Amino acid sequence: MADNAHDFSSTRLAIFGPGLLGGSLLLAGRALGIADIRIWGRSERSIAEAAPFADLATTDVAAAAKGADFLILCVPVEAMPALAVDLCRSRSWAPTAIVTDVGSVKGMVMRHVAPIFAQAGVDFVGSHPMAGSERAGFAQAKADLFVEAPCIVVPSENAAATARVVAFWEALGSRVTRMEAARHDHVVARVSHLPRVAAAATLFSALGRDASDADFAANGLKDTVRVAGGEAPMWRGILEANRDAVLPCLVDLRDAIDDFIELLRREDGAGLEKRLAEAKALRAQHLPPRQPPLP
Amino acid sequence: MADNAHDFSSTRLAIFGPGLLGGSLLLAGRALGIADIRIWGRSERSIAEAAPFADLATTDVAAAAKGADFLILCVPVEAMPALAVDLCRSRSWAPTAIVTDVGSVKGMVMRHVAPIFAQAGVDFVGSHPMAGSERAGFAQAKADLFVEAPCIVVPSENAAATARVVAFWEALGSRVTRMEAARHDHVVARVSHLPRVAAAATLFSALGRDASDADFAANGLKDTVRVAGGEAPMWRGILEANRDAVLPCLVDLRDAIDDFIELLRREDGAGLEKRLAEAKALRAQHLPPRQPPLP
Repeated sequence: MADNAHDFSSTRLAIFGPGLLGGSLLLAGRALGIADIRIWGRSERSIAEAAPFADLATTDVAAAAKGADFLILCVPVEAMPALAVDLCRSRSWAPTAIVTDVGSVKGMVMRHVAPIFAQAGVDFVGSHPMAGSERAGFAQAKADLFVEAPCIVVPSENAAATARVVAFWEALGSRVTRMEAARHDHVVARVSHLPRVAAAATLFSALGRDASDADFAANGLKDTVRVAGGEAPMWRGILEANRDAVLPCLVDLRDAIDDFIELLRREDGAGLEKRLAEAKALRAQHLPPRQPPLP
Repeated sequence: MADNAHDFSSTRLAIFGPGLLGGSLLLAGRALGIADIRIWGRSERSIAEAAPFADLATTDVAAAAKGADFLILCVPVEAMPALAVDLCRSRSWAPTAIVTDVGSVKGMVMRHVAPIFAQAGVDFVGSHPMAGSERAGFAQAKADLFVEAPCIVVPSENAAATARVVAFWEALGSRVTRMEAARHDHVVARVSHLPRVAAAATLFSALGRDASDADFAANGLKDTVRVAGGEAPMWRGILEANRDAVLPCLVDLRDAIDDFIELLRREDGAGLEKRLAEAKALRAQHLPPRQPPLP
């Protein structure tokens, strides 16, 4: 580990996965002045766009990790255990290395990924920068993606390693909160995984019977279902990995819709208005206007 | 009616209701070069902001309508019948007058508002410019609100009056479609009224148990619930007026969520991914990226 936990200029950074998050880390790391940044992808095609920005772009896990002291796993959560096994087989990293990730689920990662690294004698600290988008791939990557974005860090038993990972995200401009994995998973089930499913269900009910109705859709429907544009395999992985936390949210959602159905069925106008006003107040109090969308 | 159905320069336009839509009509009418525009509001306070842009701003229905040949009702749907009765009591409009509206529900308006005007010998043509927002009031009004916005016109038996109303919206830049009231109400239940309820229900399930989770909400949740910011009394009126069309949509939404619950419960990963991919495809095919939000 570097002498100064907040200095990343001499870091040798290895990024595994060249998508929106991994690609943005590459660009943000460059902007931060990190001297040596490697990026790994599963295929030559997957790393072609990122290669011009990296010191090394490779499909060889051991080559990407060689001598690196800060490793970030940016592959889908369900692909992390296998990648961890590959990495630990080579053990080509620097003796001071720390590993973190960007996975949207932390319980599964701390249970099934962290122990693989622990066995190999390297510290794993879980991270979740909440800066995703329904758009995927390096083409959407931005150097400032993490600026002002919330980032949750799941501490490891090694306080110095945890501090180093926190400092990394703060150097990129993120607002870091430390949180246990179980609490993290419950929070993101509510504020991130639930909306993905709600958006898909709203799409089916809005356009499932006659998609040509979309000709009359204004920005309301478009915004409500935007996150339904997220990649299906990635979201399958997230929902499966966080199943226990997501299921109760979906039951709450179903019950909230049943409430509205009941209010309308029994023509309870006052009750209906009260619920609509509660929703408006909840939004006004807790969800300030969004950042502008990606261009 | 003017000799040229597409010339509005000599129109005497009376706008009833100085909110987002009425206010935007005032500004758009000015930009179009309409010489005489009056605006009516329920209280002096409600018309204060609009007054500087109008030839007359008044709380007197008869004064606003006096000599007008194009009248637009921009009050909430549930307030329209009483306003229509007031207007027909004075009958101060020009002999060539046409009346239209901007209501989000058309069946109720054609059943309960159009006949009041028919009895008074004036043609009513239903309109629904789909350019609303969760933001309300004249402060949000924009001269270009209707540009490129879909606008549904419900034809009256008088083809010339219908053509004049269509020409009006087209002059403001809207993309007009003619549609029967019942079909309109089914379409907007799906693409507009359903998302409002889905957004509210998503908010309750996301933040209803612990609103502090909002600290970790990214743009995904914010966009998904944006339309829950709409005014509660107005939306109560819309949902009540379009109850018969909205209820089946909500049942479809509830069923779509139940499907997701079942897929997760029985750990049907392939089925889950298939549904997520269907939603992504439905969005990609039918909902192009949204217009930028209001500033």
